[in-house]
Amino acid sequence: MSNALASSIETPTLAVSTVIFTLRPNYKGCLQLATPLVRRIRAPFEGQWALPGGPLNSDEDLATSASHTLRDTTGLEPRYLEQLYAFGSVDRAGGTSAERVVSIVYWALVGADEAERAITSENVQWFWADELPELAFDHKEIINYALGRLRNKLEYSRIAHVFLAETFTLAQLREVYEAVLGRELDPGNFRRMVESTGTVEETGEVLAGTRHRPPKLYRATTNTGERK
Amino acid sequence: MSNALASSIETPTLAVSTVIFTLRPNYKGCLQLATPLVRRIRAPFEGQWALPGGPLNSDEDLATSASHTLRDTTGLEPRYLEQLYAFGSVDRAGGTSAERVVSIVYWALVGADEAERAITSENVQWFWADELPELAFDHKEIINYALGRLRNKLEYSRIAHVFLAETFTLAQLREVYEAVLGRELDPGNFRRMVESTGTVEETGEVLAGTRHRPPKLYRATTNTGERK
Repeated sequence: MSNALASSIETPTLAVSTVIFTLRPNYKGCLQLATPLVRRIRAPFEGQWALPGGPLNSDEDLATSASHTLRDTTGLEPRYLEQLYAFGSVDRAGGTSAERVVSIVYWALVGADEAERAITSENVQWFWADELPELAFDHKEIINYALGRLRNKLEYSRIAHVFLAETFTLAQLREVYEAVLGRELDPGNFRRMVESTGTVEETGEVLAGTRHRPPKLYRATTNTGERK
Repeated sequence: MSNALASSIETPTLAVSTVIFTLRPNYKGCLQLATPLVRRIRAPFEGQWALPGGPLNSDEDLATSASHTLRDTTGLEPRYLEQLYAFGSVDRAGGTSAERVVSIVYWALVGADEAERAITSENVQWFWADELPELAFDHKEIINYALGRLRNKLEYSRIAHVFLAETFTLAQLREVYEAVLGRELDPGNFRRMVESTGTVEETGEVLAGTRHRPPKLYRATTNTGERK
């Protein structure tokens, strides 16, 4: 059964959504991954939390659509959006009779400053990435997929520095790694790992303060080390 | 301008296509990357070569759609298909008045044996990946994107072994790398690189033959070393 007409009539709706991560201190003062969600105001899944996004407009490229819905809902304008994956299982509306939607999902990281400028309201809230409420569609699965990508990227690229100021101590960098990976790292092993990858270099300065042995400040080296 | 009705009427058509690579000996006997293309039999771009693919059927998951159109057009059934990227620029039909199509593209590697069993006909042919004819839509850009992904994956995963028999010499493995990367590699540096990654191990056997010093046979180690 597949003539061009039938396929074209039954074509699924295309949506573009975005997963954004930032790091925020939790109640214990430890950094933790957080992500903004938007409450749905129409069926299906009306009233449930979902990723920021919307249907693809006919005159917009995919990344433009992601930026535009993100700006409209959260006020965020991340400098860098990367395509994550297209999710299109037939059953992703989870047994509702809703029309089929294929979602092309982007992801982005934002620093704490930028995240603080984001709009929040009754219908737009930030959640800890490991304490999500029930989500519409397969959006929880999508966020977990994005978390996997983030943890993986951390290992072989300079992505952690997005969360830091221009200069930082090795302890601050380790705290970012620990928050993203969700486990404690041995300080000595961490220092050796970072030194061996060459992703950071000493600035020659130390952290201002009153301590007897103030920690050295580092910055990211300019070669991005990024692999697609 | 975006109410639900307007967006839904103007929603672009969704297609799923696949880039497949294999390695074949060229006229000089050197391995070279080849990819199958299908000639379009309807507008737009009628008569031009394009990636195997078709519109997404409403009852098929994305990967199922990729497998199904691939089997129908080329007879290929790769064990492993991976999603590559979604291509959806507004202008990818290149100035034709065709309706907008967003393509979710998968990619796969097949061994030479499997590639030889593929269907070829007047409208299905294999081309060298670096000597492509003019292609429909932005399919040349898509193939180049897939080539970039393949070269990148080669560096940090076991992907080269897909092209080889279960056991192989280091010279055979190097030949695969050279064909994919498109440049000659120093045998000594290559051996040290392979040994340092731990992706292969000696089988204890040597290549059968009459040579005075027959080369050792290796196999891939079982840890896949695969990163997404």
